Amino acid sequence: MRISTLLSLVLLATTLSYAQDINQLTDEYIQENGVQIIQDFKTLLEIPNVAYDLPSINKNADYIKSELEKRGIESKLLRMIGTPPIVYGYYPVKGARRTLAFYVHYDGQPADKTNWTNDPWDPKYYSKALYEGGEEIGFPNSSEEINEEHRIYARSAGDDKAPIITILSALDMIKANKLKISSNLVFFFEGQEEAGSMQLQQYLADNRNLVDEIDLWLFCDGPIHQSKKPQLVFGVRGVTGMEITTYGPNRPLHSGHYGNWAPVPGQLLSELIASMKDDEGNVVIKGFYDDVEPLSDLEKEALANIPLVDEDLKKELGINDPEGRESYNERLLRPSLTIKGLSSGNTGKLARNVVPATAIASIGMRLVKGCDPEKQKDLVEAHIRSQGFHIVREDPDHETRMKYPKIAKVTRSGGYPAARTSMDLPIIQDVITRSREVAGDDLILLPTLGGSLPLYLFTDELKKPAIIVPIANHDNNQHAADENMRIGNLWYGIKLMSALMTF
Amino acid sequence: MRISTLLSLVLLATTLSYAQDINQLTDEYIQENGVQIIQDFKTLLEIPNVAYDLPSINKNADYIKSELEKRGIESKLLRMIGTPPIVYGYYPVKGARRTLAFYVHYDGQPADKTNWTNDPWDPKYYSKALYEGGEEIGFPNSSEEINEEHRIYARSAGDDKAPIITILSALDMIKANKLKISSNLVFFFEGQEEAGSMQLQQYLADNRNLVDEIDLWLFCDGPIHQSKKPQLVFGVRGVTGMEITTYGPNRPLHSGHYGNWAPVPGQLLSELIASMKDDEGNVVIKGFYDDVEPLSDLEKEALANIPLVDEDLKKELGINDPEGRESYNERLLRPSLTIKGLSSGNTGKLARNVVPATAIASIGMRLVKGCDPEKQKDLVEAHIRSQGFHIVREDPDHETRMKYPKIAKVTRSGGYPAARTSMDLPIIQDVITRSREVAGDDLILLPTLGGSLPLYLFTDELKKPAIIVPIANHDNNQHAADENMRIGNLWYGIKLMSALMTF
Repeated sequence: MRISTLLSLVLLATTLSYAQDINQLTDEYIQENGVQIIQDFKTLLEIPNVAYDLPSINKNADYIKSELEKRGIESKLLRMIGTPPIVYGYYPVKGARRTLAFYVHYDGQPADKTNWTNDPWDPKYYSKALYEGGEEIGFPNSSEEINEEHRIYARSAGDDKAPIITILSALDMIKANKLKISSNLVFFFEGQEEAGSMQLQQYLADNRNLVDEIDLWLFCDGPIHQSKKPQLVFGVRGVTGMEITTYGPNRPLHSGHYGNWAPVPGQLLSELIASMKDDEGNVVIKGFYDDVEPLSDLEKEALANIPLVDEDLKKELGINDPEGRESYNERLLRPSLTIKGLSSGNTGKLARNVVPATAIASIGMRLVKGCDPEKQKDLVEAHIRSQGFHIVREDPDHETRMKYPKIAKVTRSGGYPAARTSMDLPIIQDVITRSREVAGDDLILLPTLGGSLPLYLFTDELKKPAIIVPIANHDNNQHAADENMRIGNLWYGIKLMSALMTF
Repeated sequence: MRISTLLSLVLLATTLSYAQDINQLTDEYIQENGVQIIQDFKTLLEIPNVAYDLPSINKNADYIKSELEKRGIESKLLRMIGTPPIVYGYYPVKGARRTLAFYVHYDGQPADKTNWTNDPWDPKYYSKALYEGGEEIGFPNSSEEINEEHRIYARSAGDDKAPIITILSALDMIKANKLKISSNLVFFFEGQEEAGSMQLQQYLADNRNLVDEIDLWLFCDGPIHQSKKPQLVFGVRGVTGMEITTYGPNRPLHSGHYGNWAPVPGQLLSELIASMKDDEGNVVIKGFYDDVEPLSDLEKEALANIPLVDEDLKKELGINDPEGRESYNERLLRPSLTIKGLSSGNTGKLARNVVPATAIASIGMRLVKGCDPEKQKDLVEAHIRSQGFHIVREDPDHETRMKYPKIAKVTRSGGYPAARTSMDLPIIQDVITRSREVAGDDLILLPTLGGSLPLYLFTDELKKPAIIVPIANHDNNQHAADENMRIGNLWYGIKLMSALMTF
């Protein structure tokens, strides 16, 4: 190559943005190493990973720790007896701009093999999604054989082993290109997320010294937006609930001999439930929406830019008239009250001619930023009282029954609050800018997921910003049979992780 | 005995009422034959009698037929293949005042032996009710050993073999005393009442010649009044019902991702149910009470004379506030609407964080004289429509789902109308007068039972008066474990049957 040509290339490179570097460099790296990356992913997916299967879980943890160590990351297993360990890795950087933590969970949902096309822990490589007619084509031997629409089918392919491979590949890519890692990196890989993260709080409390310097938690989990566009997610809804039992006679009665005289618990319960919402599906319980923390202007703007999925969802789910008069995106920013279950007597072939003794409603509540789980339940209880019910915590005794016309047993669930990290924080603005360089202007900034994760442990207890950085395809079948990861999303993940390690 | 004494006794006898004769003659007859009557009852109770056990059922029928024939009653078994036969007996009387039919059912409820103190078909003799501390004392060998509080424990002791023994004993008593039977007597003993009397209508249609001359049907079944007072019952409520299914999304959805947006079927169902009644438990469905046939003055007077059981029932059943503001007796004279069952998703430990796809209510309806079962269901359906629901008969397809905001699947049950025989009819007035001679002024005249029997087959289809003549103690545990018959009630039954055969 002539000097002039070389010089002009160097000049050209300096005029290119850093982002183009990352995209281009990663593309090139994938072109060279894609076959191996997919092979490594397969190896990771072959290790069964249900949280209660501790021997297998430990194999996952040991394997991931060794993969981190291979890449020069100081690693250890944080252990608590009888629980899946946390794989903890630390990579200190001289003159680091910040400390970033990458959270991933390496355990997966249990799988009922009879519903799967293949064994959940025997990964298979497909030409495209099964539901689009994809066929098994065998794992690739050269990069020419790889297409972005290809998919790997296995448990945890999307939820949540893909981020592990993208993080390891990003570290490899950065090393291969001698790029500079700009932050101290913490790797925090949990092994019991799908089992409810029961010990996560304790793990964090026991290892405060390892997490205290972290400036931002990046939760590498979940799928991109239903519209197939990439997204960053800034919060989750909290969750709580209660069970309400109403009472009729102290034993089921003959509906002929007593029907029209004995109080009917299903009637009383229905009237109570009906009193909780208006005709449009809004909750009318006093104060129910009062504590909702409003969005900032930036967040409102982000919300306005999220594609509307309402019409697609309505078609997909056979719904003519959703609850409320706002969009789906707006509805997720309100606390919810859902009748998850109803039971009284029997229906169908088992229905008998009785006035049942009790009726039960299981009520699920989702919370948004600002709502306290206990206060929200208190409001529901105040409403129940306002409807003339005496609230008890155990089934009422005879004296209580004789004293009150209407009795409701309320059994409160635990739960936890919502979490939302402000988009206005400078560190978050930096992440958004950097992510856009990879994801493009399509990047959706989602104020909250509808679902719940104990993100509050980080935002409220550790008091650190925490956002979700999803990479899996929206149709990855997480938690279900035939879970899968689209290759194009795997490549997106490697670019995004590389970008986030180097800004 | 001197002639003068004999004469004075004869003179005394003629000044005694006929009723005293029956009571006294029956007392004397029982004094002499009580041991044998109880023994015969035991023999009858020893034959298992669940309707679907055809070999045993046939043994019952054969035995009862032979017992009738022993007493000079021309008898036969009316048969329909695969069903329990009807034992039909006819006793013609020269110059009969009328033709009376005695209906009894000889089949009994199935019995779960594990809940019984003794084998249900191995009768035992007790000193008093088990729940009052009664002890097994063995069947009596002399009338001195017999006490009215004694009880026989066995399946069908109260429901409904006791009337068979009282009828047979009444025939014996009448013969022993050479009394005059005043009516042609028809005996119509059914063998599948507890299995739902499925073929009763067909049996009646196939044997119209055998039943057409009957002037009054006496249904010897059921217990006396809860207040322990004897009663005649002039009607039963009809029965029908429906199942209502409401729809949310076409599959259960994650209550986080969709809660507050997806329609909640349990909420929609609750709102619909709540709209059906007012705060006092009265049905507000348009026209629901319109067809109720009012009571005559005589019936109103009878109603006013029925002891109030409300306070006792409230205490027994742990109820502070019954439905409605009328008495229990009055409430049974209105059609009822009871939520017999509710189901949606799950409650308790099985509750999951979903928006369920459907919610189901099983609705039981009791009817009173004047209400047509089909019209009553039409009224409920009209109400469902008035609440904005589109009614379907099968689960809605996608097109239907997309077309209507609220959809309810209504599955109508069959059922049959109420029946009530007017107390004002002369033949009924005669029966009341005659029964009072045995039962005394305490005799309760109950316009209707709360429960349902297909009495309309007789009152509406055969167009003949039909009343219920119960003899069993109120605490005979019918349909339940440890069913029993109080000896005093058995004696009451013999007197009443004797009286009704001779007026």
